[in-house]
Amino acid sequence: MKIRLINPNTTWSMTDKMGVCARAVAAPGTIIHAVSPAIGPVSIESHYDDALAVPGLLDEIRTGEAEGFDAYVIACFGDPGLYAARELAAGPVIGIAEAAMHAASLIGTGFSVVTTLGRTCGQAWDLADRYGMRRFCRNVRACELPVLALEDPASDARRIIIDECRRALTEDHSDVLVLGCAGMTDLCEEISQATGAPVVDGVAAAIKMAEMLVALGLKTSKRGDFATPPRKPYLGDLARFGG
Amino acid sequence: MKIRLINPNTTWSMTDKMGVCARAVAAPGTIIHAVSPAIGPVSIESHYDDALAVPGLLDEIRTGEAEGFDAYVIACFGDPGLYAARELAAGPVIGIAEAAMHAASLIGTGFSVVTTLGRTCGQAWDLADRYGMRRFCRNVRACELPVLALEDPASDARRIIIDECRRALTEDHSDVLVLGCAGMTDLCEEISQATGAPVVDGVAAAIKMAEMLVALGLKTSKRGDFATPPRKPYLGDLARFGG
Amino acid sequence: MKIRLINPNTTWSMTDKMGVCARAVAAPGTIIHAVSPAIGPVSIESHYDDALAVPGLLDEIRTGEAEGFDAYVIACFGDPGLYAARELAAGPVIGIAEAAMHAASLIGTGFSVVTTLGRTCGQAWDLADRYGMRRFCRNVRACELPVLALEDPASDARRIIIDECRRALTEDHSDVLVLGCAGMTDLCEEISQATGAPVVDGVAAAIKMAEMLVALGLKTSKRGDFATPPRKPYLGDLARFGG
Amino acid sequence: MKIRLINPNTTWSMTDKMGVCARAVAAPGTIIHAVSPAIGPVSIESHYDDALAVPGLLDEIRTGEAEGFDAYVIACFGDPGLYAARELAAGPVIGIAEAAMHAASLIGTGFSVVTTLGRTCGQAWDLADRYGMRRFCRNVRACELPVLALEDPASDARRIIIDECRRALTEDHSDVLVLGCAGMTDLCEEISQATGAPVVDGVAAAIKMAEMLVALGLKTSKRGDFATPPRKPYLGDLARFGG
Amino acid sequence: MKIRLINPNTTWSMTDKMGVCARAVAAPGTIIHAVSPAIGPVSIESHYDDALAVPGLLDEIRTGEAEGFDAYVIACFGDPGLYAARELAAGPVIGIAEAAMHAASLIGTGFSVVTTLGRTCGQAWDLADRYGMRRFCRNVRACELPVLALEDPASDARRIIIDECRRALTEDHSDVLVLGCAGMTDLCEEISQATGAPVVDGVAAAIKMAEMLVALGLKTSKRGDFATPPRKPYLGDLARFGG
Amino acid sequence: MKIRLINPNTTWSMTDKMGVCARAVAAPGTIIHAVSPAIGPVSIESHYDDALAVPGLLDEIRTGEAEGFDAYVIACFGDPGLYAARELAAGPVIGIAEAAMHAASLIGTGFSVVTTLGRTCGQAWDLADRYGMRRFCRNVRACELPVLALEDPASDARRIIIDECRRALTEDHSDVLVLGCAGMTDLCEEISQATGAPVVDGVAAAIKMAEMLVALGLKTSKRGDFATPPRKPYLGDLARFGG
Repeated sequence: MKIRLINPNTTWSMTDKMGVCARAVAAPGTIIHAVSPAIGPVSIESHYDDALAVPGLLDEIRTGEAEGFDAYVIACFGDPGLYAARELAAGPVIGIAEAAMHAASLIGTGFSVVTTLGRTCGQAWDLADRYGMRRFCRNVRACELPVLALEDPASDARRIIIDECRRALTEDHSDVLVLGCAGMTDLCEEISQATGAPVVDGVAAAIKMAEMLVALGLKTSKRGDFATPPRKPYLGDLARFGG
Repeated sequence: MKIRLINPNTTWSMTDKMGVCARAVAAPGTIIHAVSPAIGPVSIESHYDDALAVPGLLDEIRTGEAEGFDAYVIACFGDPGLYAARELAAGPVIGIAEAAMHAASLIGTGFSVVTTLGRTCGQAWDLADRYGMRRFCRNVRACELPVLALEDPASDARRIIIDECRRALTEDHSDVLVLGCAGMTDLCEEISQATGAPVVDGVAAAIKMAEMLVALGLKTSKRGDFATPPRKPYLGDLARFGG
Repeated sequence: MKIRLINPNTTWSMTDKMGVCARAVAAPGTIIHAVSPAIGPVSIESHYDDALAVPGLLDEIRTGEAEGFDAYVIACFGDPGLYAARELAAGPVIGIAEAAMHAASLIGTGFSVVTTLGRTCGQAWDLADRYGMRRFCRNVRACELPVLALEDPASDARRIIIDECRRALTEDHSDVLVLGCAGMTDLCEEISQATGAPVVDGVAAAIKMAEMLVALGLKTSKRGDFATPPRKPYLGDLARFGG
Repeated sequence: MKIRLINPNTTWSMTDKMGVCARAVAAPGTIIHAVSPAIGPVSIESHYDDALAVPGLLDEIRTGEAEGFDAYVIACFGDPGLYAARELAAGPVIGIAEAAMHAASLIGTGFSVVTTLGRTCGQAWDLADRYGMRRFCRNVRACELPVLALEDPASDARRIIIDECRRALTEDHSDVLVLGCAGMTDLCEEISQATGAPVVDGVAAAIKMAEMLVALGLKTSKRGDFATPPRKPYLGDLARFGG
Repeated sequence: MKIRLINPNTTWSMTDKMGVCARAVAAPGTIIHAVSPAIGPVSIESHYDDALAVPGLLDEIRTGEAEGFDAYVIACFGDPGLYAARELAAGPVIGIAEAAMHAASLIGTGFSVVTTLGRTCGQAWDLADRYGMRRFCRNVRACELPVLALEDPASDARRIIIDECRRALTEDHSDVLVLGCAGMTDLCEEISQATGAPVVDGVAAAIKMAEMLVALGLKTSKRGDFATPPRKPYLGDLARFGG
Repeated sequence: MKIRLINPNTTWSMTDKMGVCARAVAAPGTIIHAVSPAIGPVSIESHYDDALAVPGLLDEIRTGEAEGFDAYVIACFGDPGLYAARELAAGPVIGIAEAAMHAASLIGTGFSVVTTLGRTCGQAWDLADRYGMRRFCRNVRACELPVLALEDPASDARRIIIDECRRALTEDHSDVLVLGCAGMTDLCEEISQATGAPVVDGVAAAIKMAEMLVALGLKTSKRGDFATPPRKPYLGDLARFGG
């Protein structure tokens, strides 16, 4: 089974880190191909970045289709372009916020999301609504760390995140923690040990959910809104997306 | 007051038609500048088209900011890129689905949306959720007409849409109709006369809502999620969006 | 265009103040007629006052209809008698809570209502439900000021309200403020400058929404619950309401 | 125990009929005083009638307080003035829609309301929302009968209502029926026998709920929104409501 | 009228206490038979206890049916086995959480539940959802007292519960209190006097609701999910439940 | 990895069938142990059966814990005893309705559940609420087949189910089908081929979700409601459940 793990930002150090974490949980026989698009933002910290990460993401889906990938993971906690990607791909596409929230709802009564910037909290709430997970989502908390601080070993990010996770458990009455940024994937084990609570990393969860759907022979239904998009002309430097 | 009316697809006949309708309702002193992006799809009929219309749309917002526009209208019923546009613009940005649903809720107990393709109905329901309008939205109905059929005088579109509107009133127990595509903007008066019900065209409604917010001195709040996005590098042919 | 701005309480100093604010935002050519009923409470601070303000309000609607008004604004944050008024009037009728909440939802991610007495907060929440605005309403906060203290220049009302608005922004994570009493209409600009956040005054917003609907040719639908009420005998000193 | 059963319309034949039905279910020792206001509409078939029934209703509450009543029932399915009445009365106040919906939720999985005019269905849905009963309310169905047709022995009302009740059970998958008009109170037994389903009459249910609350020593809480309204001047022919 | 009050745990001191409280509110002519099952847990403090209390509870329902009881009350705040009991019994079955929440919603704008252990709070929230009472339930608060501490006169339970009730009123903005454990039934009057707020005891409320339904001739509908369960073989020491 | 697949009814032909289907999707290295309890009903077709299946189910969980199982699947579409089982087990416990609904929400916009008896539809809706899946659940449809008819090769069950699935796709506008009974597990492939839509079998989905959680090192959180239940005496023939 071949899964394309797409980090929709263009920072390859983060992509590589996710690849390592993904392979650590993948089943024997699953090949993880971790990629970043050739175009787009170096990090995703706004609706603006989120929207502009999508063309590069869709390039990667199209390449994946040409290369016969079985499933895709979109590895940014805003799940950018998820529905467009589902239209384009034959196999299943999973977002990491989607995977993390679903997994968290299976092992506890309520979770807190701990993320980077406060300005993205509203989007996490919106995704909880979209996936039906609002009743399990007790809070979305920001550490006010820029995404790329997670890539900087000299930053204080580790400690700040763990402190916020501890507050989440006591103040929100949550019994599960959800990591709100793909860049936190390597902290999962450490936070779990520090807090004693189950911690869900969306990258790992999404890989396993993608494996699950492929193993079950379940693909995105093409009977409804996620049918292959009608082909049509596209103008300008997006012309390659038409046909 | 200068309002930039952005048709996010690249079909200028539709853009021009919207401009005419917008000017017909605009206040004296309001200048309507109707534009299409230089890049992107000729029509928006999928999540894929919707996502790929956003870069061109954001180009138009940026140009508008440079030229001192007071407000923006996004004239596609999926309201693509609305939140990203709000981050980028100083003045208010209104989507036509948003405007139409809000206006419809002020004049009746429940509305039906009549749109083009069935595959976009799910998105209209999602927008009703997002705007809090689910309790007023009694149904979303598709005519199974491609968007560009609305631009073809030889098509049977007019009759098909009016028939669907009649069914909406009797079968959905709705008392207001909402046109579910920017390309229907010129049919508003005709449908209202044919059915005897109030018909809300989102293009006209959004123009008036934009005027309203400007007149009230209300701009998108920059205190929360819609703050100006942090500047950062963008790679490839999207580099112009970074800075 | 003639808009009848009805302050449903009988305190004309408040009515006059609202008229001034309304005219300040009205379009050229809009005539604002600000009135109070001849009967009813001097202020509205309970469900009891709210209910008993309605007969006088409906008198004003009927007079307005006879005099050819195009639209009506009900200028009390409980929106008393809104649905009954919609049945009676040919043109649109807008409540100020309704207008303020809708406008606030267009320019931010969540608003706080700041109102006078704690005992009216439940009603504001109920209206947020009714209009579909619950998902945008982050809090309703009371200053514990009687309504008529707003008319008393010697009171400390101004400072108390601004303090509560500041707390709303920091404690509720709101990015927009909504004034929860028609009597605060003249404080809008001052609060906005003091807090740096957009502040929505329902009186001004409702005037512009009424103008919008008239400009769009949209009237309350008479196909459903808001059809003209059936005529019938009324007994006692309400006999003038029958026919 | 003394319960004041207030029919908020001024048609005493209906009031007397309700009194008979109420006494048939009341406990030994409960005195039912069935009254209509001196002022207001002869029937309630619109938001307009509903609003204008409230002053007369509040007169009856005030008289009841002076005469030492223990509890009140508002016997119109729109539950007009319920919250205002709760502010005014020391003892509990129950609306018949409220009582009927609560009782129905205790004996089945979902109910249908069968009411008179289609134009009042929206209000029944709104009340289901207000009381938390939306998840039990499967449908609200109208017979398109004027309220006073229920008082006319020559009308076909009986048969029409029973037919609609039968359709409710088969088409709505409901297992309980709720009578949507106080004027249907005397049909309860007959409909139950004709359909074989439990039928809830709000008048009877409200009497028993009022008895229950009095027996439990439970009165409307005066700590919150339902505290006694502040006294203040009222102008014109409503002056008696001030103080 | 004969009502079987079933304490689903096997601690008879608690059962007897409930019987005393129930008889204190029952109507003349109502016979209260308070029982505990022969099998099952001595207290119910987990989903595990809750589930394992149900066989004994159903034994008591079956015995009650053989002895001609008119109605049943399930006297544990988790309302264990309520739907199964409704299938089995001819007459109505009421849970004490259900009764308490409904009654509380009739006399205030929002209630707080004060219960024993924090680990049962989630279940109280779930029941509020199930009964449609979420919009009235402002908080569920735990005293962290084991259920059987309520039976120990030497414990500090009384004071701890009253303190938590006081906090509920001030911190949750509730105007009604709901006792979250059947074992608190004898504290109702004392808490009400200490706090000045209405306090709803589910045992008393359920007895009165059961009386109400019997008086109205309303039984659980057998048309839907609560029809008598199909008979079938049961294996092992549960064989007596088959037939 | 050892997963205990518990069919909570006592019909071993069904248990064996589920075991075959489970092993067909399990990963290499996963050992599936399919069992039925020694006590309880031969099929689960009511809340009564559902409740009485739980003691036997909990026996199987306890045995599983003693034997070192890593995870558990509860293979009845009512997910009986799920929360009690979570308290008891160290590893994750998944219900098949839960697994099926979550999986279906990942591959389409809306699903229909096709189940056996109409009297169980309400429970499926309740579970959709509990898991947050209401927004994806477009309908729950019954074939009015007894559960054990699925075990009878001579019955017409196959054809009836496929017909109902076809109607679900066209009438409910669903794009995914969910099998609403564990006994349908062997029909999954056939229905998918007959209808052309993705079909989710909860038994298979739950096995993969259990594998996923074990692979991710995620266990039920013991910080909240699902903590190990407090030990205490149990009376009568349930004494083995105490300790």
